[in-house]
Amino acid sequence: MNIIPFSMGNEIAARNARIAEAMAGEGIDAMLLSSFANIYYATGRVFCGYVYITADGNATYFVKRPNDLEGENVVRIRKPEQIAETLAGKMPATVAIELGLAAYNTVLRLQSVFAGAKVADATPIINKVRSVKSEFEISKLKTCGIHHEAAYSRIKKVYREGMTDVELQIEVERILRNEGCLGQFRIAGDTMELFMGNLLCGRNAEAPSPYDFAMGGEGLDESLPVGSNGSLIKPGNTVMVDMCGNFNGYMTDMTRVFRVGAISDLAMRAHQCSIDIHRRLVKMAVPGTEAKVLYEEAMSMVKEAGLEEYFMGLKQKAGFIGHGVGIEVNELPVIAPRSRDILEEGNVIALEPKFVIPEVGAVGIENTYEVRPDGLECLTNAPEEIIELY
Amino acid sequence: MNIIPFSMGNEIAARNARIAEAMAGEGIDAMLLSSFANIYYATGRVFCGYVYITADGNATYFVKRPNDLEGENVVRIRKPEQIAETLAGKMPATVAIELGLAAYNTVLRLQSVFAGAKVADATPIINKVRSVKSEFEISKLKTCGIHHEAAYSRIKKVYREGMTDVELQIEVERILRNEGCLGQFRIAGDTMELFMGNLLCGRNAEAPSPYDFAMGGEGLDESLPVGSNGSLIKPGNTVMVDMCGNFNGYMTDMTRVFRVGAISDLAMRAHQCSIDIHRRLVKMAVPGTEAKVLYEEAMSMVKEAGLEEYFMGLKQKAGFIGHGVGIEVNELPVIAPRSRDILEEGNVIALEPKFVIPEVGAVGIENTYEVRPDGLECLTNAPEEIIELY
Repeated sequence: MNIIPFSMGNEIAARNARIAEAMAGEGIDAMLLSSFANIYYATGRVFCGYVYITADGNATYFVKRPNDLEGENVVRIRKPEQIAETLAGKMPATVAIELGLAAYNTVLRLQSVFAGAKVADATPIINKVRSVKSEFEISKLKTCGIHHEAAYSRIKKVYREGMTDVELQIEVERILRNEGCLGQFRIAGDTMELFMGNLLCGRNAEAPSPYDFAMGGEGLDESLPVGSNGSLIKPGNTVMVDMCGNFNGYMTDMTRVFRVGAISDLAMRAHQCSIDIHRRLVKMAVPGTEAKVLYEEAMSMVKEAGLEEYFMGLKQKAGFIGHGVGIEVNELPVIAPRSRDILEEGNVIALEPKFVIPEVGAVGIENTYEVRPDGLECLTNAPEEIIELY
Repeated sequence: MNIIPFSMGNEIAARNARIAEAMAGEGIDAMLLSSFANIYYATGRVFCGYVYITADGNATYFVKRPNDLEGENVVRIRKPEQIAETLAGKMPATVAIELGLAAYNTVLRLQSVFAGAKVADATPIINKVRSVKSEFEISKLKTCGIHHEAAYSRIKKVYREGMTDVELQIEVERILRNEGCLGQFRIAGDTMELFMGNLLCGRNAEAPSPYDFAMGGEGLDESLPVGSNGSLIKPGNTVMVDMCGNFNGYMTDMTRVFRVGAISDLAMRAHQCSIDIHRRLVKMAVPGTEAKVLYEEAMSMVKEAGLEEYFMGLKQKAGFIGHGVGIEVNELPVIAPRSRDILEEGNVIALEPKFVIPEVGAVGIENTYEVRPDGLECLTNAPEEIIELY
């Protein structure tokens, strides 16, 4: 099997060129990528091993597993020390390694492979490169958005009176999987874990979670304290659905809200405020805009509406209203008050101004957008109003 | 909410004592645990922060999130530097940190928190402690086994002629989730990723995967190349089901095989060889047995049966036939030819001698066992023969 899937066309050469350009700006001679997400970005395929990219944009693929990958510049290895043998005489003066992701012991071992080289951190560089999506990537994300929307449109049909949040979530999982969702919810780093997404009903939305998600939930077990907890879905409750949109290695992030019976005016008003924030930010978020300005604008609209105490959680508040998304759910840019990120054309961001209303549940929507010259283009086009379940 | 769930009783004090004992043997004054799996082990709950255990068996809980945890020795922090303030004057001479798991940058930051202290690796120590399960943990694993078995017993009912492997897997996922499975498949380190388990049909079992699992499979997408790939389940095929047994933070590992129509004698014989290996190892695996001896015994039975070329994969072979399991799927001991592990009473191991038969698919079973004074006690008691789907 060719290491670069043929469907990738010239995409990989273009990515290598962008990575090389980013390295040159930092005085780096070579970058060694080792995490599955970065290997997937650099080749279009997950394998176990390393991608080594030099300042001229050439890549060498050191593959441990699987044993059936071939193609130009593929070197089969059993252990990282064999990288040094291949590079003998062409050792970089400065090599960038994923210091922000790879385990300490792993980095020490790689440092000795590149003995004598100065080691830099590849993580911020590759994260920045990955934050600007190519047409190819945008197209994959658009496909996700279409399937994501198709799956959500069937949620109403599987609701039955007397269901618990978990029972409904299991049916939503099945809808998504049958629509082609891979299920996997890829997260960079070690601050979050989740099974396939979050569905929050009623008061459970008030429960703070250990994870760095926008919303919490008690979860079913102390070992995974997030999301649905077995609550009965009752009249007057909302059900917030924020489930996995990974259909092809990329993922869209989309949240929609359902209700049983009538819900309070406060909840309806907060939901509309979330939609209004989206409408405003869609126009503001042109390339060059500071990410923090989007946060500030959202916060000022929330304050104007007198909804601050419910915004982004009750007992514990999330510190952001949006984030980059692509191969992983927590990419750049971060839409937060202290973010230094500046929007670029080709960023793909999920905006999720949400509220938790006491006794009712969570409201507000999340959409995934492409940053275009004239503002945001929505990739997740399901209806945004609160949908009644009956 | 109390940081130690009340259901844990005296369990945590006993675990702290065992951790302290293991540290003393290594000349370590304190251990700082930061990964979700180790925090769960040390408290019975996942939170974001650190558990700091000293050589006298006392634990301090530094909690970043959630903000509603309380109890003895709970210190709320925003950043790890605040650990130093709390410990001022009581800094350890040697502190063990998860060097094998935590990211390089994370470790550097923690090293500066413990400035002046010698840093040791907590990973092998805590892994060894966790490999010997308490009665409390065995009881959780037994519960998993019962639910795991109950779910597998319903697989036959959801099969319909003309299904693909993915369609069947989605129904198995739903059965498991409705039985109480949390879905999450916890894995230590970064050599594997998987969505909820593996279901392999026919020739797809021959496809090598990048991951360090016993079996492979092409998967549905290059971004997650493992498991079902959309193959039609045809007469003469086997379907190997190896799905997630996490019902309470612990997980059992169990594989069973199904078939459509008649399958080759070779496949039937290989499946029986797997069962025979289990029968033999159940008696051999008493405390004090070298893990590698179990591997050697299995391999010698396989050779005697003339089945070596099919054992543990065709094009790419797994290098082990079993592994510890508990909070994560890849715990100690490892049952492999170069393993130095020695079985101890209270180990919980999954044994999975499996075969890939060309054109037919994968056969062989996997069970999770407790190591007891007189050998292995099975925690996953579903019928072991190949079950016909129709």
